[in-house]
Amino acid sequence: MAEMDIFEAMYSARALRRFKPDPVPDAVLTKVLDAAIRAPSGSNEQSWQFIVIKDAAQRKKIGDIYRKAGKILLALYENRVRPEHMSEKTFNKLTASAFYLIDHMGDAPVLILACIQQVAPAGPPPKLPPEAAEAMKHMVRMAGSSIYPAVQNIILACRAFGLGTCLTTIHAFYEDEVRAVLDLPHSVHTYALMPVGYPSDKFGPITRRPVSEVVHLDRFGNHWKG
Amino acid sequence: MAEMDIFEAMYSARALRRFKPDPVPDAVLTKVLDAAIRAPSGSNEQSWQFIVIKDAAQRKKIGDIYRKAGKILLALYENRVRPEHMSEKTFNKLTASAFYLIDHMGDAPVLILACIQQVAPAGPPPKLPPEAAEAMKHMVRMAGSSIYPAVQNIILACRAFGLGTCLTTIHAFYEDEVRAVLDLPHSVHTYALMPVGYPSDKFGPITRRPVSEVVHLDRFGNHWKG
Repeated sequence: MAEMDIFEAMYSARALRRFKPDPVPDAVLTKVLDAAIRAPSGSNEQSWQFIVIKDAAQRKKIGDIYRKAGKILLALYENRVRPEHMSEKTFNKLTASAFYLIDHMGDAPVLILACIQQVAPAGPPPKLPPEAAEAMKHMVRMAGSSIYPAVQNIILACRAFGLGTCLTTIHAFYEDEVRAVLDLPHSVHTYALMPVGYPSDKFGPITRRPVSEVVHLDRFGNHWKG
Repeated sequence: MAEMDIFEAMYSARALRRFKPDPVPDAVLTKVLDAAIRAPSGSNEQSWQFIVIKDAAQRKKIGDIYRKAGKILLALYENRVRPEHMSEKTFNKLTASAFYLIDHMGDAPVLILACIQQVAPAGPPPKLPPEAAEAMKHMVRMAGSSIYPAVQNIILACRAFGLGTCLTTIHAFYEDEVRAVLDLPHSVHTYALMPVGYPSDKFGPITRRPVSEVVHLDRFGNHWKG
C-alpha cells in the first residue's frame, strides 16, 4: 500500500481532469476499488457495482456520450454567475478544466463508473405507518448515501497512489445510452463517472469557503466559532 | 493534526453507534469539519451547511424525532431477509446496533447534520435542448454527490482523531420537524445525521463482499480479475 497521511490526502486531492497517456496498473486499480468498498452503505447492503472501462473503443463510446451531455452542461452554464466564494481566476480555471473534460473524457486511460444495483427485497412488502408513504418521498435524494462515500474513498485512494480523478455526474443525462454501451441491467443505476490517470496537473492545495461560514452550532444562523 | 495512514483509516472506520459521555473538544470538531469541506461539490458550489448539535435539549429533541423515524425503519425491517453476503452474526450485530441507535441518538455527545442549501442561480434561466428536461429527472438522485463525499471525510477524520460516528438518513422521514428544531430555512435540505463521540466499541476491521463480485471490466458481467 502507498502510505500517506489521511489529512494530506484529503487536503490535496483536488479535481484533476487532464491525464498522461501512461497506463494504470491493474494491481493499483484493484487496491483503489478494494479501498472504495470499505465505505458505508445503507443497512450494509453493499449494492454497489463498479465498471472499470479500459478498452479504447468502449472509452470512446462513453466519451462521445459525455460530450453530448456536455452540451447540456454548457447550456446550463451559459448564464452562470461566478459564486462569491470563488475568485475570478479560480472560476475561470474550473470552467476551462470542466470544458476540457467534456471533449476528453474518453482519453483518460481508465474510466470508473460507480453504480447502485437495486434488488427488490425478499419477502412480502412491509406494513408501513400511514405517514411513511409521504415520508419515503424524501428518501430518493438519500440514495447517493450508499455510493458517494465509496466514490470519495476512490478519490482519496487515487491520491495516495499519485493518480488524478474527479467526480462527474452529467453522463446521466443520457443514462440509457451508457447502459446500452456497458450492458448494464435495468436494475443498475449510475451515479458517478470518474476519469482516472496519472495527472498532467499538480495535486492540491484545496481552498474552500471557511468553516465559520458553513457550520452552525445548535441552530441554523448561530455560526460556529470553534 | 492526528496522523494516520489513509488506508488504515479507510479500513478501520466502521460504523460506531455507542459512545462514552466524554465531551469532544471544539478544536477537534473544527478540524473534522475543515477536513469535510475539502471534499468535492458539483461545480465547486460548496452549498453545504453543517449543524453541530451539542446542546443537551436540542440533542434530546432530535433524538426524539430519530426514535419516531426508527419506528418506520423497524416496519421496513420487519420482513427483512439477511443478505447473502452477511453472516448471521454480522447481520444480528448490525441489527442490534442500529436498533440501539434508534433509542440513543440524542445521547451521543455531538450530532452533526449535513445539509445542502439550494440557492436559485442568479441570472435568467438557461435555454436547454428539448431532451434536457427529461434528462434532468435523472439528476435528482445525484444531489448527494455534493454532500456525501464530505460526509465520508467526516467519517475518516473522526477515525483519525479516535472518534466514532456513522452515517444515518432516516431522520428525513420527519425532515420538517428537524427543520423546526434547528431553525433550518426551507432552502436547506438534510442529507445525513451523524452521532459523534469517543466510542465504547472498537474500530475496524471492515469486511466486505470481495472486489471480484462488484467490479466489472469494460462491460457489466465481465468480472474484474485484477
